[in-house]
Amino acid sequence: MLVYGRNVAIELLKNPDKIKNIILQEGFNEKNIISLIQNNNIKYEFKPKYEMDRLSKGVHQGIILFIKDYKYYELNDILSTSQFIVILDHIEDPHNLGAIIRTCEAAGVDAIIMPKNRQVQITSTVMKTSVGTLDNVKIVSVSNIVNTIKTLKKNNFWIVGTALENSVDYRDVDYSGNIALVIGNEGSGISELVRKSCDFVVKIPMYGKTNSLNASVASGIMIYEVVRNRK
Amino acid sequence: MLVYGRNVAIELLKNPDKIKNIILQEGFNEKNIISLIQNNNIKYEFKPKYEMDRLSKGVHQGIILFIKDYKYYELNDILSTSQFIVILDHIEDPHNLGAIIRTCEAAGVDAIIMPKNRQVQITSTVMKTSVGTLDNVKIVSVSNIVNTIKTLKKNNFWIVGTALENSVDYRDVDYSGNIALVIGNEGSGISELVRKSCDFVVKIPMYGKTNSLNASVASGIMIYEVVRNRK
Repeated sequence: MLVYGRNVAIELLKNPDKIKNIILQEGFNEKNIISLIQNNNIKYEFKPKYEMDRLSKGVHQGIILFIKDYKYYELNDILSTSQFIVILDHIEDPHNLGAIIRTCEAAGVDAIIMPKNRQVQITSTVMKTSVGTLDNVKIVSVSNIVNTIKTLKKNNFWIVGTALENSVDYRDVDYSGNIALVIGNEGSGISELVRKSCDFVVKIPMYGKTNSLNASVASGIMIYEVVRNRK
Repeated sequence: MLVYGRNVAIELLKNPDKIKNIILQEGFNEKNIISLIQNNNIKYEFKPKYEMDRLSKGVHQGIILFIKDYKYYELNDILSTSQFIVILDHIEDPHNLGAIIRTCEAAGVDAIIMPKNRQVQITSTVMKTSVGTLDNVKIVSVSNIVNTIKTLKKNNFWIVGTALENSVDYRDVDYSGNIALVIGNEGSGISELVRKSCDFVVKIPMYGKTNSLNASVASGIMIYEVVRNRK
């Protein structure tokens, strides 16, 4: 996988064994980054700007890193050690996924579960928008969300979904037990089968005309509401 | 100003007098959109894909709209009718600004104040990410945030800033009065002079290693905390 940009480079250079090699733009002279690369014996080379533009498809700021692919966890790896899990029910936008990962890390969420299909995976944009938090969060990739929820229920998790209709105020639920919070798709929300598997369906009250929040913003509000009940 | 994409087109066609004219890709045949355009007597023409790609610099989905520029409010327009204001202390990322506008609309924030300089303005990306909420929020453009805060204080507003250091837990403040919530820049947070003008400086507690939230996510958590104290 290929990522780029100075901030993400500095973040990644803290875990240098994840980096395969680095390309720097001819004339790149940020001494702190270059010395981090050299001190960690990471393979690097200089290339002209036009080659880097072609590779990165974005603002690379003179540095492109080739890194090892993200290694997902298995459900069994995280079940016994988790009390607060976030389940993503088919998030599509990599910026949203990155921001949700960042929030989960900050809030101390134990694991994130996401489906293998019809869901954005860990891409370079996700890595960039999660600004280095990816290493501190466990992400589980599953084939079927509904089956996963069944397993979580057997393991004493309460399943909390969000939806505008037929739902209770998000502040009126007790989140002190083991919680799996389901975040729905940006356009269609949580799917019908997932909704039927939820123990609680909650909504964030809205007072405007449009009644919609960005998925990562809604996730942040919900995640911190769960945290409020626990810490 | 130029915006593009089908969802934003459908949203904008609800307020057709903001639209100057529309370009459709040759072969565009979404009947509901075309009939909305025709019923509202909006000027439109068809162009080849390559011309639209050049104009839009993004995924236009066959429709580009030229719309009137956003008309900002003056501070005096909103002072007497507002009880909850959000102040942006130099937000740079248009996706963040769009998501914050969307959250403000949903939460019933009365007005948003933002600086004229070193702050992303209402661009087409902002319009796109705010998904049609822009019309229902009053945005005030000011030259100087610190002077604006002085005026707000004279008008009985409490100024609440956010910062990780020398701050209290965001849940420990009473937000029931007139509140102006200051959201800091993505990288550097709120500026020192703005911080000195705040009546309260609060933080969202973080439990991870990275201790950072996306600016629009942090805004969402803070805005809904103020709402919690009021509605």
